[in-house]
Formats: sequence, C-alpha cells, structure tokens
Amino acid sequence: MNNIVDYKILRDQYYQEMMICLEFWLRYGLDEEFGGYMSYLDRKGDVFGSDKSVWFQGRGLYTFSKFYNDFDKSEKWLNAAKLGYDFLLNHCFDSDGRMFFVVTRDGRPVQKRRYYFSETFAIVGCAEYYKAGSDLRALKTARTIFDKVFCFYQNPEMIPPKYNPDVIKAKSLAVPMILITTAQTLREADTTNADKYNACIDLFINEIFEDFLKNDKKALLEMVGADGEYLNNPAGRTINPGHSVEASWFLMYEGICRKDNAIIDKALDILNWSFEIGWDKEYGGLLYFVDIEGRPSDKLEWDMKLWWPHCEALISYLMAYTLTEDSAYFEKFRLIHDYAFNHFRDEEYGEWFGYLHRNGTVSNSLKGNLFKGPFHIPRALMQCYSMLMELTDKSQQRA
Amino acid sequence: MNNIVDYKILRDQYYQEMMICLEFWLRYGLDEEFGGYMSYLDRKGDVFGSDKSVWFQGRGLYTFSKFYNDFDKSEKWLNAAKLGYDFLLNHCFDSDGRMFFVVTRDGRPVQKRRYYFSETFAIVGCAEYYKAGSDLRALKTARTIFDKVFCFYQNPEMIPPKYNPDVIKAKSLAVPMILITTAQTLREADTTNADKYNACIDLFINEIFEDFLKNDKKALLEMVGADGEYLNNPAGRTINPGHSVEASWFLMYEGICRKDNAIIDKALDILNWSFEIGWDKEYGGLLYFVDIEGRPSDKLEWDMKLWWPHCEALISYLMAYTLTEDSAYFEKFRLIHDYAFNHFRDEEYGEWFGYLHRNGTVSNSLKGNLFKGPFHIPRALMQCYSMLMELTDKSQQRA
Repeated sequence: MNNIVDYKILRDQYYQEMMICLEFWLRYGLDEEFGGYMSYLDRKGDVFGSDKSVWFQGRGLYTFSKFYNDFDKSEKWLNAAKLGYDFLLNHCFDSDGRMFFVVTRDGRPVQKRRYYFSETFAIVGCAEYYKAGSDLRALKTARTIFDKVFCFYQNPEMIPPKYNPDVIKAKSLAVPMILITTAQTLREADTTNADKYNACIDLFINEIFEDFLKNDKKALLEMVGADGEYLNNPAGRTINPGHSVEASWFLMYEGICRKDNAIIDKALDILNWSFEIGWDKEYGGLLYFVDIEGRPSDKLEWDMKLWWPHCEALISYLMAYTLTEDSAYFEKFRLIHDYAFNHFRDEEYGEWFGYLHRNGTVSNSLKGNLFKGPFHIPRALMQCYSMLMELTDKSQQRA
Repeated sequence: MNNIVDYKILRDQYYQEMMICLEFWLRYGLDEEFGGYMSYLDRKGDVFGSDKSVWFQGRGLYTFSKFYNDFDKSEKWLNAAKLGYDFLLNHCFDSDGRMFFVVTRDGRPVQKRRYYFSETFAIVGCAEYYKAGSDLRALKTARTIFDKVFCFYQNPEMIPPKYNPDVIKAKSLAVPMILITTAQTLREADTTNADKYNACIDLFINEIFEDFLKNDKKALLEMVGADGEYLNNPAGRTINPGHSVEASWFLMYEGICRKDNAIIDKALDILNWSFEIGWDKEYGGLLYFVDIEGRPSDKLEWDMKLWWPHCEALISYLMAYTLTEDSAYFEKFRLIHDYAFNHFRDEEYGEWFGYLHRNGTVSNSLKGNLFKGPFHIPRALMQCYSMLMELTDKSQQRA
C-alpha cells in the first residue's frame, strides 16, 4: 500500500521544508549584536519585540546543534549554535543557579518563573551542543542543571506552589514528561552516565503510568493530585492532546531504546486515545484543550489549532508506523501531514503560522514569540525526515 | 431622529433582559449549602467546577445589592446578597488582611495573587450592601479594605512585581482605572467621607491622563513605564478596547458628578479612539487586544469577541449620548446593541455567551468561570435601563 515512491516524495518534501524553516531562523533569528536569538518575529521575520525568551535560547541552541550534528556540518549552523550558547551562559542564569524566563535583548533579567522549563531546555541545548564540538563546559553545564532539576523533581516543595498545598496538592504531567526527553537527550551526550539517566527515566515513566495515565478514562491527564487522584474540576479534567501525543513519542522512543514492548504498547494507547479525544471531527486538526467529560473548557483558546501539537503528532504517528508497520498509523500521519502542510505552512514567507481559529483560518501570522521559535517545527521535520529515510531504505531493500 | 417609541422599546428590552440574567444567577449561582456564589456554570446553569472565584463573591454581592437598592426591594435579592457577604467575610480574607483569588466551595484558600482586584471588588460589594441594609460592619469593611488598597496604590513596591524592577518598572492601566469606580461606589455609601474619595479619584484620574493617555497615538495604553514612558514592545503597544471604553464611562461619570467638562471631553476622546482601534471592520464586534502599531499581538485570544467589552461599550455610548445628545453616539450604541444582542444572548437558556470567535460564532458556551459571572451583563443592563428611562422621560416632556 505504501510504496517507495510515497516515502521518497515525502522524504524530499520534509527535507525541503526543514531547510526553509531553518534558513528562516538563521536569517532572521540571530542577534549578531548582543548574541542569542530574537524571539518576537512577525510573518516576514521582522522583529516586533526585543525581549528574549530564555526557553528559546536553550531550544534554538538544541535545534542548530542537532541540525549540525545530524544533517549538515557547515560552520554557519555551529556558529548559530554558539551564539545561543554564549548568551545562555552569560545572561540567562540567576545568582541562585536558577534560570530566568525573559531577559532583555542585551541580557538583563526581566522575568523569572516558578517552574523549571527554562532549565530543561538549557539542558537539551547544552547536551546537543556538546555533541557538536566536544566543549566539556557545555556537558558540565548540562549535568549541573540536570542535577538541580532532578533535585526539584524529587523535592517539589522546593518550588513555590501554584495552589495552596494545605488545601490542594496537584501536580502536572508537563514535569515528568519534559524530564523524559531531557534525560534522553543528555544520555546521548553523557554516555558514561547512561545508567544514571536510565534510572531517572524509570522514575519519570513510572510516575506517568501510575499517576497520569487513566485506563478507565482512556486518557493521559494534564493535572492530578499528588498521589495521582483524579481531580474532578476544570483543570483536572483537561486533556491537552498535543501534550499527550508528544508524551507518546517520548515513551515510544524509550521503548525502542530499551526494546521494551510494554512501554511501547502503553505509548500507542496514549496516541490512539489522544487522537480520539483531540481530533476535531468538524473542521479537522487537533483541538488545544478538551474536557474529558465533555464539560466546557475554562481556557479561552481551547478550540484553536496550534502548530506544535501537529508537529508532535507528525512524529508520533510516523514513529508508531515504523514500529508497528500498521498502515492505519501511516494514514493518520498523512491526515495530520495534509492538515499541517495545508494550514500552517506559510507559502509566501516561509516557516509556519502558529495560531489558527477552529475553522483553520489564520488568527495570528507571527512566526515567533515567547512560546514559538526554532524548535517544534524543525524538530518534527528532522525526526520525520530521518524516519522517512529509514522507510525508503527498508522498502528499497525489500523491493 | 430618536423618538420616544425607540427609547421605550429599548428600555423595555433592557428590563426584560436584566430580569432574565439576574434570575439565571439567582436560580443557578447561589450556594445555599456553603454560602457564596458558584462560579463555574455551563450553558444550562449546571455547575462544572466547585471552586469559587473571590472576584465574583464581591462582584455578585455588588450586583444583587445594587438591583435590590435601585430596582426591586424583594427579600430574595437581599438574601442573595447576604449569602455572598457572609461568605466573603468568613472565607475570602487571608490572615494578613489581603484576599484570596480562588477558594474551595466550602471556603478554603486555593490561590492568592499578587494584585489586589479581589479587594477592589469586595469594596464595591460591601459598599453597595451597606446601602441595602445599613449594616455598619459592611461599610467599615469596605473602608478598611479601601485604605489598604490605597496604601498599595501609593506604595506599589509593597506588591511583588511582575517584572524585575531593576530592569523594567512598568505599571498597568487596570489599577487606577478600577480604583476610580471603586472609590466612586464607596463614596456613594460613605457620604461623610466624600472629600477623601474625591481626593483619591483626583490622583487616579490624573495618573491616567498624565501617563496612560497618549494624544499623539490617539490611544489609552494598558501598560506604560513607571513615569508614563511608552514601552515599545508587545505589552506596551497593547490596547484593550474593552478596558478603554470602560475607563471612558468611569471618567464620564466622574465628569457628570463634578460637572467637569474637561474630564468629559477627554473621556469622549478615549471612547472615539477606542472604537476606531477596536471595532472589527470585517466581522463587527470589538477585538479583545490590538497592537497600536499594527504589529502582531502576543495574545492567543487577541481577535476573540468577549461579552464584557461589549457590555462596557453599551454603557459608554449611551452615556456619551445622554451627555452630548449627539446622535452619532446613539447610532454607535445601536450598532453595539445589535451586535451584542444578536451574538452573545443565549435565546434558549438565557444569560449571555462569553466567548466568540472573530467571526461571531460561539467558541465556548459556558455562562460562568473565574472571570465571567453576575457582574458585567447585569451592570450594563441596569445602567442602560436607567439611562433609557431618563431619555424616555425627557422625550416625553419635550413632546
């Protein structure tokens, strides 16, 4: 059913799209004057805000390093990575070792947040950058931040709570989920300590399976009580289908690394359920937030279509297909692919739109802000390209 | 052009609509078991979350008291007010005198926020409740909270800053704007201290005119530097047209109270400019956020149509018309009226939808959450009804 030609055409399309997106950020996203990456880019790549997202200093560092490592050893990609690396080290850490959330263009701290995602994105950035140039300081930095973050993970009371802990002890899927991919990426750089990261990943996966995965509800929840209790309120009933499918491929990837089918089976359940919950049967595309019991969402943007859940779904479905060879997964991949390429892709100026109305029309034409930048799209395109390459090769061998 | 019949028909329509909305909250919003008001109501009035918004304990208290005071001296409205009043006093204050943001259904604190809007809404609630029953404790509470809030206003460094104050000192329109209406409402209850509130209102108005009103940009800004500097970034360029038109009628009302045309003229400028900036020429309705320089908004929900800006616009335009007798204001009022009644009104279950897509279709059918409840709609309907009554009487006298 799926022949070599299909894979080849798609593979080439992903390569072309990957180059368009990466060149967009290379051309418009680098701050040659102060270092680091600009965050606020409009449709054409013009800067519309000078503050810098610390998340995207780490994420951009990861992306440029990864592309250099796996695709193109041109100096320009390594230089782009170094620009973010230096800025990250020089301007994004507070004196307590924690990281900021927003800094000014020249690197003065504007905002710091409770949670530690700036840190996790710095870890993956530094780890991938270490692989690019064997700069030991990058590896040491990644290790140090990881240890700090892992300490927070084990002692959540060290982070100021969002809700009063005397009344409600809640925890978010985002934490163990992001930590899986963080530890996976660091493990590939810090190979001598692989056992340590494996042990950490065991904990993260265990927490997700024990506390956030609800077989009776056929859902991966975003927020539960401290011991995994179902919270029957808007936050506790919320599913973020994009998050769920992203978690699914983090888990599948771990299943592949460990040759552990039990993990893979659960990851596939999550993928299947999330699509069922999140796919908009009326207009197509993945909804941003869905209440698992069909009650109203308390998020204004619940029915918008965002670029990143579709990026994660592309990876997840193609990974599920490469793992199972079940063509139903390839069909879903094509469905998401068609939706994403038809709706998010900006044919005129390159890169993708990030925010669509429920009906698929563009709500905001920006290319970058504190949450969108050189990460989800190039990561998805790189991952899918590699898998399509593998599928092409495998089909050619069979033919 | 606008005859008695027009006003009469509209007046009766506003009365009817006011009753539908108030009865909806009376029927579904009261928590007879634990006291106070439920916040999360779906389209039909069913509760979909048990946590309570502290904002809406104060705001609901204001609404039920106001309706009792000005429209209908039935016990049921006073009882509804008392339910919120008792809950507010018993469960919504922290030991430091500050107020919470969210409490559980039975009144245990869930969340507390930096800013002090829970406090300002408690002030208007208690002030209006005092007028309903002369409960001196209500007046004293309102006075005490007002003094605390005014102290924060004069010493903003007492509140944890959103941004690092060493790098950026920013301030929000919301603060002086809400404080105007808060002081106005308290002044009507605490008449012996009117001079004190007048002096406070002078400060608030002065700050708005000096620092947030930009004649060269024909705009009222949402966020400026500590000394009113224009911040050329997404937050600094953001206009919230709903906020602007709301501020406009707070100012017009003060102009009326003081017979001060200078205030009224500036308020009318704000109204005219805000409509120009915020009215969606393609689909109608007021946009939620607009970048004054036409750059992309960094808010996902920027082009949604929310109920409350339209409520505020109804009041503002009708007030502008009663003040100036300029029929252009009445025409704009009719335009907003038609948009609001055609798009937000829920013909089937009563009350109004809160959240529409840009094209006017309903995005979320909920009737209440932490930000929507018994406040903007009944306030607008009560205010407009009173003004339409006045217009009818005046026309009859002339005829």
